[in-house]
Amino acid sequence: MRPLALTMGEPAGIGAEIAAGAWSALRATGPLFFLIDDATRPFAVPVRAIAAPEEAAAVFPDALPVLHRPLPRASVAGKPDTANAPAVIAAISGAVDLCKAGRAAGVVTNPIQKATLTAAGFRHPGHTEYLGEIAGTGVPPIMMLASADLRVVPVTVHEALAKAIARLTPELIAETARITARALREEFGIARPRLAVAGLNPHAGEAGTMGREDIDIVAPAVAMLRAEGIDARGPLPPDTMFTALARPTYDAAICLYHDQALIPIKTLDMAGGVNVTLGLSIVRTSPDHGTALDIAGTGRADPSSLIAAIRLAAELARARGTA
Amino acid sequence: MRPLALTMGEPAGIGAEIAAGAWSALRATGPLFFLIDDATRPFAVPVRAIAAPEEAAAVFPDALPVLHRPLPRASVAGKPDTANAPAVIAAISGAVDLCKAGRAAGVVTNPIQKATLTAAGFRHPGHTEYLGEIAGTGVPPIMMLASADLRVVPVTVHEALAKAIARLTPELIAETARITARALREEFGIARPRLAVAGLNPHAGEAGTMGREDIDIVAPAVAMLRAEGIDARGPLPPDTMFTALARPTYDAAICLYHDQALIPIKTLDMAGGVNVTLGLSIVRTSPDHGTALDIAGTGRADPSSLIAAIRLAAELARARGTA
Repeated sequence: MRPLALTMGEPAGIGAEIAAGAWSALRATGPLFFLIDDATRPFAVPVRAIAAPEEAAAVFPDALPVLHRPLPRASVAGKPDTANAPAVIAAISGAVDLCKAGRAAGVVTNPIQKATLTAAGFRHPGHTEYLGEIAGTGVPPIMMLASADLRVVPVTVHEALAKAIARLTPELIAETARITARALREEFGIARPRLAVAGLNPHAGEAGTMGREDIDIVAPAVAMLRAEGIDARGPLPPDTMFTALARPTYDAAICLYHDQALIPIKTLDMAGGVNVTLGLSIVRTSPDHGTALDIAGTGRADPSSLIAAIRLAAELARARGTA
Repeated sequence: MRPLALTMGEPAGIGAEIAAGAWSALRATGPLFFLIDDATRPFAVPVRAIAAPEEAAAVFPDALPVLHRPLPRASVAGKPDTANAPAVIAAISGAVDLCKAGRAAGVVTNPIQKATLTAAGFRHPGHTEYLGEIAGTGVPPIMMLASADLRVVPVTVHEALAKAIARLTPELIAETARITARALREEFGIARPRLAVAGLNPHAGEAGTMGREDIDIVAPAVAMLRAEGIDARGPLPPDTMFTALARPTYDAAICLYHDQALIPIKTLDMAGGVNVTLGLSIVRTSPDHGTALDIAGTGRADPSSLIAAIRLAAELARARGTA
């Protein structure tokens, strides 16, 4: 079994703490992973510096294996330092290179501090876009959030709601759904994925009496998908499609805007949600929270979401055959 | 204890069935209620015609008390008949009159079929607006959805999302929040209600980088409310305000659009959600579902939401002193 590569993320954040917590929880059972970080930093658990991923398996039962990449500046909890930004980025690209070389099963990324990386010259809006550049497959990388009983994929993500609505087209919705369906087949091992496509307006517009978008934009997208042989249904009334009875009827919900996707999944399972990037040449997951600078160094950070991210990455790697 | 008045709703729908189910569940424990309906219709439980609400208490342990209001036309399950529309409306106004006269503790309404009432000349968009006219207090009636661990109030309701966004103003948000805070004090018995006001954009706009509405519209509404002594917080990131950790920190969430309110409550508790109308001179609740014409007459209708509506109406009547 190849190990998963866990990136350091922002060194002033909670990355090292939750990595230690995840190792404690998983050391006896796996999945096997190693952290790319400065092994001389203080950790709350035993760590051992390794020089190559192949050394991780022997170390893992007794210590957190750390692929040693020295930080230029000693990190201070809660105080990001632009001097360390190149090391943060190198941990991501290094993890991707190890996957491409067949030496790691997949990448799990700890949260980064976007503003600090931007100040140091990083020109990508975030992890996902950067990974699209260095591990893309010719389609836009797509964000999925996955928890125990719900997977959601927002068609539009980090933009004002009014702007997101104005930008919706049948093509954009269909492209997102297509990439999702393909990833569910190839990465999640679901032979015939069922997609539930959300409507935009209350009750999906009630036959056009509350907005035309569901008729003019969402329904044509669903028709295109069905014509291509994809099992897609919609537009569905957004308020009833995430109920306990509805959730088991599909494998992923295609949502039209950020909060239509994130409200139901975070309401159900705040800690267990995992961010998965679809449409990459490698497996990539991440915890569904930020750097938590305010509690970094206090030992209060909860590793649950990172643990879920590591577990899901291992499952996806098995389905892809990179494990 | 004064009884609650339960209206017939659409006679071709599931109203009579769920009324019977609610009586079976509550006959031994209360809350005490009577149904305003045609007592000669077939019911799946023993019924007894009563001539006045005061007779309900003696009947309740043994039979569903029905304040007899004959239907002009025998109702057929699944087939609404405009000839019965006046009786449907009279049941609502009759229930309100009994509350105003101090002979009923509150009104619980079974679902109506809007199109059928409209075809018969009913000029109100729905129950809530009609009740605002016959039992108003000079403020717009406000819809709240309440479940065991979440109360939500949408500022805009049945309109296209883009139109709802365009219609948001600090005044509209503040007025809705004010009516909610007052109802929480006077009807729910919460001395100092805590309101959580949702943002509009992802992460509440992240300091204006994803839309200006949270800064220009929502924040001023919260400032107005706080200046009036109302414990309101916001704009809050919509995706994290409904988590299990966040929900206990407020008494009601003021939401900006239909699905921002309805997705979290229906995702958590599909059957238990109760619709409460705030800002009326009487107590009014209703189940959070429709007439279910497709399953009417099959005995498959679930009375859970009606039972929750009856229980909540009894609580509100106690807090108001009308019980």
